[in-house]
Amino acid sequence: MCCPELVRSIPSDPAPPRGPAQGALSIAPGALARLRGVCDLTHPLTPDFPVFPAYKPFRATPLFGVARDGFYAQELCFAEHTGTHLDAPAHFYADGGGTDSVSVADLIAPLAVVSIADRAARDEDTLLSVDDLLAYERRHGRIPPRAVVALHSGWESRLAEPGRFLNADASGTMHAPGFSREAAEWLVHERDVAAAATDTLSLDFGPSQTYDAHLVLLGAGRYGLENVASLDRVPPSGAVLVVGGPAHRGGSGGPARLLALY
Amino acid sequence: MCCPELVRSIPSDPAPPRGPAQGALSIAPGALARLRGVCDLTHPLTPDFPVFPAYKPFRATPLFGVARDGFYAQELCFAEHTGTHLDAPAHFYADGGGTDSVSVADLIAPLAVVSIADRAARDEDTLLSVDDLLAYERRHGRIPPRAVVALHSGWESRLAEPGRFLNADASGTMHAPGFSREAAEWLVHERDVAAAATDTLSLDFGPSQTYDAHLVLLGAGRYGLENVASLDRVPPSGAVLVVGGPAHRGGSGGPARLLALY
Repeated sequence: MCCPELVRSIPSDPAPPRGPAQGALSIAPGALARLRGVCDLTHPLTPDFPVFPAYKPFRATPLFGVARDGFYAQELCFAEHTGTHLDAPAHFYADGGGTDSVSVADLIAPLAVVSIADRAARDEDTLLSVDDLLAYERRHGRIPPRAVVALHSGWESRLAEPGRFLNADASGTMHAPGFSREAAEWLVHERDVAAAATDTLSLDFGPSQTYDAHLVLLGAGRYGLENVASLDRVPPSGAVLVVGGPAHRGGSGGPARLLALY
Repeated sequence: MCCPELVRSIPSDPAPPRGPAQGALSIAPGALARLRGVCDLTHPLTPDFPVFPAYKPFRATPLFGVARDGFYAQELCFAEHTGTHLDAPAHFYADGGGTDSVSVADLIAPLAVVSIADRAARDEDTLLSVDDLLAYERRHGRIPPRAVVALHSGWESRLAEPGRFLNADASGTMHAPGFSREAAEWLVHERDVAAAATDTLSLDFGPSQTYDAHLVLLGAGRYGLENVASLDRVPPSGAVLVVGGPAHRGGSGGPARLLALY
């Protein structure tokens, strides 16, 4: 897989400095006081969870067992973009921050869930647009700064049927909704989001060859969350997302445990 | 490594059902309202992070690079008990719950930090005792139900010098503080903790051959957190720990991103 048109820079620092490990919450005072419940927005990770075709599936290999060894432990191997996971800026930018560059303050964020599930049921390649975001705000209020804005397309239900989540056609082109370039730009420049999230495999719509949403968001130093679960179980506004993102140094991404408080 | 005396049962179900994925917070109402800051209690994970001698170190292998492929991604391989990580009951009990059995409500917990660092500086194998827990409560108030109780020994500073964290002697016996069996029993039966945590490699003290603290805590269906970072940067009481634990099904444990709100 070679995409020379996407080359943006030569690696300058394979391990950018770690983001601040301590800081003030960017949640408005009082917003936490109303929280009473928690919902797991993470898919259980199994060897049959669909992955981008360039990656091998998740593998867990037993190393020790209770009966034989007194304890049980496995070795895990997987590509960084497996299961419910985080994309760091370094995923698309050689000089972008790695997994450990994300500020901890941005791992605890107001969550805005924008549903385009009705349209996605009719149009597999539909794009979340600036109009969708403006319609969301008319109904649920302005998206606060450093929020995580999540695209809910209903794609999760397709995990029950092999092949329907990746949804590749006969030519291998995948079909799934994503963020439009303009929506990604608007989220960065007009609303200063911390991240964008999606219940699909990719921030970009399935047929994308140019990865516009990734490039805009990661290029602005924001992170992405993909394969997010249960977005229909949390309120569209008012929840707080805690992103248990990967802690390995200099990664392009990695599995993340997402817990929504609401 | 064979420890037949530790064999407790024959595997009955390699993939126990997933714990509740949605629930009420077990934090007292109002406790969240006071939170203003966040601190990362997770060590950055690198190939040179010390692991239990039975495991290989963490490996990250580049699969794709921006200059050549247009994007960067790695494959990660590691034993489940690597870096800052969670121990599930299945780690020591063939019929114990796996990584995905931990209730999400127990992943958001009051944090109590009990420091025995002064004593650990003089006695590498010191045990956190029931007396230490009672002394903590006299100073900081009663440990609330479903808390995570963390042992702070100051072991983190030893990561700067190779070998001093595992701290094996000439015979291979490791030396580090841990929870006494009685303290583990007291935490389960008298305070109904969700989990116990430590800044060392193991809930049990280094020379342990019987893993009493593990057996008591995991045997009661509680989880463990090991190699926890920065426990000296959060208040001894009043913080809330969010445990971004591993989401793979049926695991014995796995890396966890720990974020303390305080």
